[in-house]
Amino acid sequence: MINIGILGMGTIGTGVVEVINENAERIYQRTGERLKIKRILVRDLKKKRAVNINHLLTNDPEEILRDDEIDIVVELMGGLQPACNYIKMAMENGKHVVTANKEVISKCGRDLFEVAKQKGVNLLFEASVGGGIPIIRPLKQCLAANEINEIIGIINGTTNYILTEMTENKMDFYEVLKKAQELGYAESDPSADIKGMDAARKLAILSSIAFNTRIIPEDIYTEGISKIKPVDILYADELGFKIKLLALARKHEQGIEARVSPVLLPKRHPLSSVMGVFNAIMVKGFPVGEVMFYGMGAGKEATSSAVVADIVDAVRNRSNKNITLCTCFGDEKVIPAEQTESRFFIRMLVDDKPGVLAKIAGAVGDNNISIRSVIQKNRYNGTAEIVLITHRALEKNISSAAAEIIRFEEIKDICNIIRVEGDD
Amino acid sequence: MINIGILGMGTIGTGVVEVINENAERIYQRTGERLKIKRILVRDLKKKRAVNINHLLTNDPEEILRDDEIDIVVELMGGLQPACNYIKMAMENGKHVVTANKEVISKCGRDLFEVAKQKGVNLLFEASVGGGIPIIRPLKQCLAANEINEIIGIINGTTNYILTEMTENKMDFYEVLKKAQELGYAESDPSADIKGMDAARKLAILSSIAFNTRIIPEDIYTEGISKIKPVDILYADELGFKIKLLALARKHEQGIEARVSPVLLPKRHPLSSVMGVFNAIMVKGFPVGEVMFYGMGAGKEATSSAVVADIVDAVRNRSNKNITLCTCFGDEKVIPAEQTESRFFIRMLVDDKPGVLAKIAGAVGDNNISIRSVIQKNRYNGTAEIVLITHRALEKNISSAAAEIIRFEEIKDICNIIRVEGDD
Repeated sequence: MINIGILGMGTIGTGVVEVINENAERIYQRTGERLKIKRILVRDLKKKRAVNINHLLTNDPEEILRDDEIDIVVELMGGLQPACNYIKMAMENGKHVVTANKEVISKCGRDLFEVAKQKGVNLLFEASVGGGIPIIRPLKQCLAANEINEIIGIINGTTNYILTEMTENKMDFYEVLKKAQELGYAESDPSADIKGMDAARKLAILSSIAFNTRIIPEDIYTEGISKIKPVDILYADELGFKIKLLALARKHEQGIEARVSPVLLPKRHPLSSVMGVFNAIMVKGFPVGEVMFYGMGAGKEATSSAVVADIVDAVRNRSNKNITLCTCFGDEKVIPAEQTESRFFIRMLVDDKPGVLAKIAGAVGDNNISIRSVIQKNRYNGTAEIVLITHRALEKNISSAAAEIIRFEEIKDICNIIRVEGDD
Repeated sequence: MINIGILGMGTIGTGVVEVINENAERIYQRTGERLKIKRILVRDLKKKRAVNINHLLTNDPEEILRDDEIDIVVELMGGLQPACNYIKMAMENGKHVVTANKEVISKCGRDLFEVAKQKGVNLLFEASVGGGIPIIRPLKQCLAANEINEIIGIINGTTNYILTEMTENKMDFYEVLKKAQELGYAESDPSADIKGMDAARKLAILSSIAFNTRIIPEDIYTEGISKIKPVDILYADELGFKIKLLALARKHEQGIEARVSPVLLPKRHPLSSVMGVFNAIMVKGFPVGEVMFYGMGAGKEATSSAVVADIVDAVRNRSNKNITLCTCFGDEKVIPAEQTESRFFIRMLVDDKPGVLAKIAGAVGDNNISIRSVIQKNRYNGTAEIVLITHRALEKNISSAAAEIIRFEEIKDICNIIRVEGDD
């Protein structure tokens, strides 16, 4: 009999209790052990619960963290503190820990894995990235023999839902955000999602594993999606692209390129067809080539699947401590964003006068950037919109070209600059 | 130091040697052990090899199977015998085994896992399905808490390449097969691929794991792709479908439905966009929902990735025997094909006379089948082609309707009957 303590009883916690109860027999067959939820930490002992767990509730974390009978602690509180301290205490007391907390793992991973190693316990976090999609364990185990050189993915369901709706229904960002909040796809404070921070935390975890070096969210250049306008999506469509919030980490000789930003992706790219709240992660490595993992990236059911899989693994691995060891042996540098290269989509509002495009093209060329395609359209009141897509260029060259262009009197605004990914 | 013996040195064997050599440091970091290839079994000691291994070669299997210093045996010979016996002997002598052999695992799995259990050794076979795509381990571990109810996939690269080429270049089956053989995508004897047997073996492995019950290739209704004509692909396209060789296993109350056959899949289905030699496997379960795994399903590099991952796992798991135990605790029945339901595409050549369609529709209706869509096109010499798509119907009802229809004097031929999958 394995005793489990759960910290936090929100949506995911409820799902985990349900899955453990409904799959008790299956779990027993696969592990030879019975799981028992012994104690659950909650803030409010009196709140009405969807599952019958009232006799297990406590508001004193010590009743779980210091209970010698508890073998596995499942942390589902979210947020950095006190979750991080509780995880640490649990491991210091010899307990295996399963968590869905991407913020804790991405920011405090180094310390926590050190404790896990010292105490010989498992620290498992499959549910922290990609909801129910198996990705952490495949990266650590199934692709263990690979030299991974790129990992790109759509790893935030909220922003992918918003961009999908904006694209399909030609709606404005704020309009869709409101709808997403009503449907429960966006939180009442959506900033961690829409500013890209949630994706950056997940990318920090994925890239640390993929490249065997510690990458923290602060290392990752992060841009959100609130700047994307319906007109950007229309131009992208006309040019053969979709707009997605892409998390990207790529190995170069000089170090690791890592960023979260909206990008234009060719429509035929496999990630372009990932719609709504689905997630997908594509890994490129040698010898495996390209592999992609796709599924529900969030939600009670999918996330519970990953949490319970980790619990089952912790049960199986109690005697085999090295499986969850930290694999960040390396010390790769993250390349500053301005020294990275990309193709760029640039949308500008200009006076509709002869010679404007030539001036812009001149400034672009002076900064060592070559243009791949141009659209110019007349708007209203003597203004025109110019959309450029460049060939690969250094980000700092794009910045300095933009700084020159914005000074031309014919330029009303550089409305948006968005990276372009996928093969030329 | 872990000593490895390899049985067989074809394309995959060469790849495995290369990956082990090139990734020695990475593997050491991840396992704390150095791998040494000690001995390699080949048929021909004098054949010229792509890698420098001549000093390791032997043509005596006992030099590997009975060598007490060898910890892990990697079987890459292919074919049922003697591979199966060698694997058994290796395990009986206390060695862990890694194999890419789908025929052995799908046909002799029951016996072999029994030996593995008795001897407390690992028997790992990630490379037997989907090449480099992580699928066996995710199914066994990451989805361990799930009740899986369906697994569908494109798991044979040769046939998917052929169907993709037939679709994109409007070429005939035999023409493309010849091209595939020239390019090395099809073997000189391609029958195991094009008749669906290869996919059936892989499906037997996947469904045994997914449904926790032993399913062998003989249980699986299997149809190949040689009956698919370019005209079928054209009609499918007109109706909004692609034609794919689909491996499908689905859990019903009465038992397991399992088959490999060409199907029409809606173009928007995620598996419809899997092109060429790529593979993809979609798993539906509770609580995880839908997850899909995509990548190169064959080839030296991708397959070596999976083989070496298994070797790494065997090294890590030497002390933890239960990880690879057989999970076929159940005893589900496979439903006979004629008792399963599907939608169907039926293409017929008929005399172009009034009343023919009515007669066909009558025969179909008499057998309790309702029609969803019809195309009728005139051909040459007073003949017409009629294409039906039915709603869901029992396979035996389709057979008896076809038997009635073929007796009508206006019917020249029932040219093809193909199942239709994906949502209505």
